[in-house]
Amino acid sequence: MSSTGGETRTAGAAIDFRADGHAAIEWAADYLERVADLPVLAQVAPGEIRARLPEKAPDDPEPFSAVLRDLDEILLPGVTHWQHPRYFAYFATSAAEPGILAELLAATLNSIAILWRTAPASTELEGVVLDWAADLLGLPSGWHGHIEDSASTSTFAACVAAREATGRDLIVCAEHGHSSIEKAARMLGMRLRKVPVDNRFRMRADAIGDLSDAAVIVATVGTTATAAVDPVPAVADACGASGTWLHVDAAYAGSAMVCPEYRWALAGVDRADSLVVNPHKWLLTPMDCSLLWTSRRDDFRRAFSVVPEYLRTPDAEDSLSLSEYGPALGRRFRALKLWAVLRCFGRSGLQRHIRNGVELASEFERWVQATDGWEVCAPRHFSLVCFRLEGDDDRNRKLLERVNASGEMFMSHAVLNDRYVLRLAIGQQSTTADDVRRAWEVLTREAERV
Amino acid sequence: MSSTGGETRTAGAAIDFRADGHAAIEWAADYLERVADLPVLAQVAPGEIRARLPEKAPDDPEPFSAVLRDLDEILLPGVTHWQHPRYFAYFATSAAEPGILAELLAATLNSIAILWRTAPASTELEGVVLDWAADLLGLPSGWHGHIEDSASTSTFAACVAAREATGRDLIVCAEHGHSSIEKAARMLGMRLRKVPVDNRFRMRADAIGDLSDAAVIVATVGTTATAAVDPVPAVADACGASGTWLHVDAAYAGSAMVCPEYRWALAGVDRADSLVVNPHKWLLTPMDCSLLWTSRRDDFRRAFSVVPEYLRTPDAEDSLSLSEYGPALGRRFRALKLWAVLRCFGRSGLQRHIRNGVELASEFERWVQATDGWEVCAPRHFSLVCFRLEGDDDRNRKLLERVNASGEMFMSHAVLNDRYVLRLAIGQQSTTADDVRRAWEVLTREAERV
Repeated sequence: MSSTGGETRTAGAAIDFRADGHAAIEWAADYLERVADLPVLAQVAPGEIRARLPEKAPDDPEPFSAVLRDLDEILLPGVTHWQHPRYFAYFATSAAEPGILAELLAATLNSIAILWRTAPASTELEGVVLDWAADLLGLPSGWHGHIEDSASTSTFAACVAAREATGRDLIVCAEHGHSSIEKAARMLGMRLRKVPVDNRFRMRADAIGDLSDAAVIVATVGTTATAAVDPVPAVADACGASGTWLHVDAAYAGSAMVCPEYRWALAGVDRADSLVVNPHKWLLTPMDCSLLWTSRRDDFRRAFSVVPEYLRTPDAEDSLSLSEYGPALGRRFRALKLWAVLRCFGRSGLQRHIRNGVELASEFERWVQATDGWEVCAPRHFSLVCFRLEGDDDRNRKLLERVNASGEMFMSHAVLNDRYVLRLAIGQQSTTADDVRRAWEVLTREAERV
Repeated sequence: MSSTGGETRTAGAAIDFRADGHAAIEWAADYLERVADLPVLAQVAPGEIRARLPEKAPDDPEPFSAVLRDLDEILLPGVTHWQHPRYFAYFATSAAEPGILAELLAATLNSIAILWRTAPASTELEGVVLDWAADLLGLPSGWHGHIEDSASTSTFAACVAAREATGRDLIVCAEHGHSSIEKAARMLGMRLRKVPVDNRFRMRADAIGDLSDAAVIVATVGTTATAAVDPVPAVADACGASGTWLHVDAAYAGSAMVCPEYRWALAGVDRADSLVVNPHKWLLTPMDCSLLWTSRRDDFRRAFSVVPEYLRTPDAEDSLSLSEYGPALGRRFRALKLWAVLRCFGRSGLQRHIRNGVELASEFERWVQATDGWEVCAPRHFSLVCFRLEGDDDRNRKLLERVNASGEMFMSHAVLNDRYVLRLAIGQQSTTADDVRRAWEVLTREAERV
């Protein structure tokens, strides 16, 4: 038997796993308690953190306590706090406690799912939690699902499968489709056509045009700029006629479907060939956890299965190797964190989290609507509010910079109809009505100074 | 300020972060102490783990203790133990304790490096540890480096950059190049040409042929089957004449370069356009951590930079956003675990780990060579021994199955010159001379039964 005390188990690390581990837990617990008091956006200039770090690794082992100390003293001022209750930028996320601890456990096991036999529990739990999630979100049963690192990879993988299945090389999406679609097209050497959006920033179904040479069309349920919902049923109709693959990007808004009252946004998704939802966005799971489902399992396998001789095993006939269904060969045990989150929250806890975010956003929206000199700039469906201050783009740009420089909150922006617009996205589990009120106070205070 | 005690911080999870966190550390420490006593290869049939799990997520929160209990009782029998001292399959890896704890910290911070400003510390620490690693491994200074999840992604990214830079669509590698090269070619719709190997399983420089239409040639330093080292200087010569991109895959053997005595294998690598080394393979870092360096930073940026309006920030001119240099947009704080490992081991601790693996492999090789009825099948350079038992493939296949079914050790195989060959790979930090002796005892014992 090995010891974890350093000398016997490790070849020379300066660590006492039990003692250092408990210290790390205390650090993490303290951090989560005090994060609300730190500036949300890191208040450092480019290069500042790097300049404080040595140019070379040490020759001899340093204690883990030195790592914790430098994390506090050197790195923390350079951390933008995604776990802060007043993080409202891009899409606000939460790494909830069960998921954090599950990442510790996953790293301890270090299961690497190359083939089923290298990680049976990881492989099979992944299937189980994908089925659980499909049920929670009201998706069709029987789809094949697995975990990718991010929606960029999930959408990329869907494009690869679609090209393989159709033999075509055109990708179609709306003007407000995510940048990862353009990136996938560029990486794959595929063509990209963008469909204009309507006055609610949704793909214009009447402008989709001819899809007969399209490999895939990406419809978005919850766009990045405004959380708009493309008309998926109409897109599915267009696909049906041409044999085009329908990929639905519900990376952000998909999590909301845990609440039945938001499932109007799922209309037509049952006709998709593939679908991505990111629990690391709005379903409390630490980065990285992107769920990719497909109703065309065999097409995925045809696109991605490369099994060299040294990976052929006697159990291969009966067992599932997820490396045959996506770009990666080696895969982390990501299912563990989603399993921990789904169990420790349960359906009711997840619903409470989603509803909390939507209600807070709705309240914020009412304040904007009720206040002279402010304007809501896009329909709000979920927990994202797009708004702006009366005046030109420059005034809004300056307002955003002042607000973010205050450290009191962090927001981001979008451009809608050539106008600079502010985005307040709610998704942190620790965000309360007080935090949103504080955000509005900061915004109105700074607005008077620009 | 938020509390970590459940009710206020979370929307409804059943967790007490401090108490459950300490329990998780105790679980992890106990696991690392007892893993040597568990069967290495999971002794379950496909579907067995899945059948023990509920079909749906719970409606209401369950305590984290239930997750830990089920991890023990339901999942653990389905875990193949990569942390076991007698894990000798594929490439044996180690998730060392500093890296495990750093994953806990990274999940706690949940930094997502989309842009520099969303994660300055993560972005800048990544640059620092890549420079540290380049120095430790004896690589040229001044290369741009970043972290990808796996060598599959790193090699894929190099192929994308090479196609963008050359405008060509042919990938060339040796017959023994990794399967991820074929997978990259398939995903990208690029052509693949394989160069034959010599009697030491290295790419035959005299058979590379015309590279004038090749985007990239992948040379391997430490192939998967035998850890052979392709003749990188000759490959670089061939590239120079044709303008072909040279990508070096040193995913496994690159870590050995921390010891100067193995740097003969680096000859010519300074002429590479890109290079991948995986610390999650042989440098003690938990999955996933693949280091990708390039001497052609601008070509990478041209290939991958897609910055939509909502990601444009005032600091963009002076700051580095790693999402512009690879496939992913959102990126985990992976640098933290490599930083913790490099510091807590130091150069001397890393060297001790590598030398331990090579010495143990060398000893095992001597036993095989000295024993009638056994044969070493490929030159051994590092910590991988390829060997076989006298007799036909079927006898060796049966031997491998018996050995793995014993639970006492786990190995894998390769096919060399159409012969089935066994592979013993050493890389676990906890592997001792006793473990390798035990492996040889199991092999010789089971050999008498086949």
